Amino acid sequence: MPIVHITRRERFSAAHKLSRADWTPEQNYATFGKCSNPNWHGHNYVLWVTVSGEPSTETSFVTDLSALSRLIKEHVLDHLDHKNIDLDVPFMKGRYSSTENLAVAIWEQLEAPVKALGVSLRTVKVEETENNYVEYHGER
Amino acid sequence: MPIVHITRRERFSAAHKLSRADWTPEQNYATFGKCSNPNWHGHNYVLWVTVSGEPSTETSFVTDLSALSRLIKEHVLDHLDHKNIDLDVPFMKGRYSSTENLAVAIWEQLEAPVKALGVSLRTVKVEETENNYVEYHGER
Amino acid sequence: MPIVHITRRERFSAAHKLSRADWTPEQNYATFGKCSNPNWHGHNYVLWVTVSGEPSTETSFVTDLSALSRLIKEHVLDHLDHKNIDLDVPFMKGRYSSTENLAVAIWEQLEAPVKALGVSLRTVKVEETENNYVEYHGER
Amino acid sequence: MPIVHITRRERFSAAHKLSRADWTPEQNYATFGKCSNPNWHGHNYVLWVTVSGEPSTETSFVTDLSALSRLIKEHVLDHLDHKNIDLDVPFMKGRYSSTENLAVAIWEQLEAPVKALGVSLRTVKVEETENNYVEYHGER
Amino acid sequence: MPIVHITRRERFSAAHKLSRADWTPEQNYATFGKCSNPNWHGHNYVLWVTVSGEPSTETSFVTDLSALSRLIKEHVLDHLDHKNIDLDVPFMKGRYSSTENLAVAIWEQLEAPVKALGVSLRTVKVEETENNYVEYHGER
Amino acid sequence: MPIVHITRRERFSAAHKLSRADWTPEQNYATFGKCSNPNWHGHNYVLWVTVSGEPSTETSFVTDLSALSRLIKEHVLDHLDHKNIDLDVPFMKGRYSSTENLAVAIWEQLEAPVKALGVSLRTVKVEETENNYVEYHGER
Repeated sequence: MPIVHITRRERFSAAHKLSRADWTPEQNYATFGKCSNPNWHGHNYVLWVTVSGEPSTETSFVTDLSALSRLIKEHVLDHLDHKNIDLDVPFMKGRYSSTENLAVAIWEQLEAPVKALGVSLRTVKVEETENNYVEYHGER
Repeated sequence: MPIVHITRRERFSAAHKLSRADWTPEQNYATFGKCSNPNWHGHNYVLWVTVSGEPSTETSFVTDLSALSRLIKEHVLDHLDHKNIDLDVPFMKGRYSSTENLAVAIWEQLEAPVKALGVSLRTVKVEETENNYVEYHGER
Repeated sequence: MPIVHITRRERFSAAHKLSRADWTPEQNYATFGKCSNPNWHGHNYVLWVTVSGEPSTETSFVTDLSALSRLIKEHVLDHLDHKNIDLDVPFMKGRYSSTENLAVAIWEQLEAPVKALGVSLRTVKVEETENNYVEYHGER
Repeated sequence: MPIVHITRRERFSAAHKLSRADWTPEQNYATFGKCSNPNWHGHNYVLWVTVSGEPSTETSFVTDLSALSRLIKEHVLDHLDHKNIDLDVPFMKGRYSSTENLAVAIWEQLEAPVKALGVSLRTVKVEETENNYVEYHGER
Repeated sequence: MPIVHITRRERFSAAHKLSRADWTPEQNYATFGKCSNPNWHGHNYVLWVTVSGEPSTETSFVTDLSALSRLIKEHVLDHLDHKNIDLDVPFMKGRYSSTENLAVAIWEQLEAPVKALGVSLRTVKVEETENNYVEYHGER
Repeated sequence: MPIVHITRRERFSAAHKLSRADWTPEQNYATFGKCSNPNWHGHNYVLWVTVSGEPSTETSFVTDLSALSRLIKEHVLDHLDHKNIDLDVPFMKGRYSSTENLAVAIWEQLEAPVKALGVSLRTVKVEETENNYVEYHGER
């Protein structure tokens, strides 16, 4: 049986900043530049979730995309969309809100529920702006 | 001589919320939904500025796009990019940060300096998400 | 007060064909080419609806985009999305399913309900493929 | 010698539905939702074909992209473009027209002719809508 | 009868530079910056041609898009695609190759043949990069 | 620690042609078609550079994207943007300017400086037109 990869695109709009509480504003600005603005800024993040598996002989689907989309909504988007990543998101507590950390945290949110769908989580891709994106494949 | 329209695209990432200080959180949520999240959210805004004029016989340009881009940077982007629209932006003071108000305010910021370039400001277009955008043509 | 234009983007996927029942297959092929395939073909149509008005002093909105989106869903998308334009769509009965006719028909579907929102319908834009789109501004 | 991957993008517009002949309309709707509409719906599919090989010392090409494009046209697009995937396409006979099955079938159509060009087929990617795409790398 | 606008997108890749033969390299660089590179640079230009008219009662088309596309190919693309705008293009002789001049020249190339199709030429839009585009509506 | 991939998108506009000095114009046209136009043509190239590494515990970044962007500017864009690839670019001397060769040459330009940033170069992707792109992963 072929193993096919299927990707769902989702979007969320959120506020954040990059700054360490144990650094001065000057130190934060030196490292994080305008991303350290104390009053926050924000982005339209785009999220792609890729899973793989064998197409079902009954439905010809690797997985029902509506089910995958609902799962992403419940475990990721409901926590992030129209939120402040640094203040409002339980699964980002204690982590700086870099796109790198966000991709890894989204992977951790999705790994178990995707497995429960009977497919393998392959890639979490997060685009912060049209010029920057991050991918996490579960590598350590 | 032909009158040609020329458009420059720029981008800014900013935080904001939609909520009235004189309303309760429940009233704000009823009208503004998740856009009223007290801890802010944010967007990658895309801005298109259209000006028109006759191409110069000397340079064949309606206007030097580098000059137009610098002017947009000075009068608009330096105030909005990586900022909180509700807290950090002098020209948005006293206005709710709807995309409508943002487009009108950007028009007001650009009208005089664009005129000083010798061309006419025709349209300010602001995209908030891939599904929503606003255009202001200076109509009243 | 400024008059601002606001645009909502929506999408629908539909089947159709271009062929006249009173023509032979050869005549249809001569005029409509591969678009006349008897077993249908289909598109991901993209729809932009532009309305204009003065931003409300209470909400700063020209119109609540969620309300506009629901109205487009009720009057347009629920009839067209995942349908056969030639067989399933009451408001396209008796009209060939060219993008031109589709744009005019969508305008007619939206004109009254948009007016009831208190704003003016300005443009219906329908994209059939990345290389072709149609705009209708209500001109006759 | 370096091994380089080169990708050609192509497009086709087609009708299809997801429904099993041995299920009732209710069963089909329960599993496939609005994709089971009996009168079909359709999409603008986007197809990316990736092949790899060493750039020729004579031409500096991995493969002549015009030749690759003609090959995709002959073996894939001429069968799918402006067609009904469920009724008109020999290589989809006996397979449900999920994007998963489509990607695998396109791989099978291209594998031998791509090999005859002297390069390796690496990925067939099929996008059904802007939010969903499938990739097949030949894995079993 | 409704008057509908229909737009065809086309693309061409061309080389050019911005420099006046009667200026020194230093003068050219001062005005045109890196666009004055003596050995040329180039772009993937995108062209949108908008025409308007009443949909035919026979075909439901404002105009046959294949005919419009062939006309654009004959009068514009065959002269510009994979060419040097400053050296190879008869209709650009004696004009600097700014995007402004290009849009006006393309309008002039298309005005008569579009009229011969029985429709009105409304807009020629030329995009030079993702951040810059020009529109000409025939205004003088 | 997780290993995360991060990608920076950049753009450059350049002229080039595909033709061998030791072939006749007819031979060049037979192999390279309109890409062999003696007076050059050009493209808006898009470049994606992907690097991977562990996010820093201090900054949460795999690498500072501003530093990566400056490095790409210094080693790649300053040599290619608004240039003639065949005449102006030292690191393309002696190589035909196919997108394949360009991707490999950009890899070679970036490999050492990316390593000096403490991360691994994973992919150089170069898009020549919306329908064609090349990826090099350092495979030999």
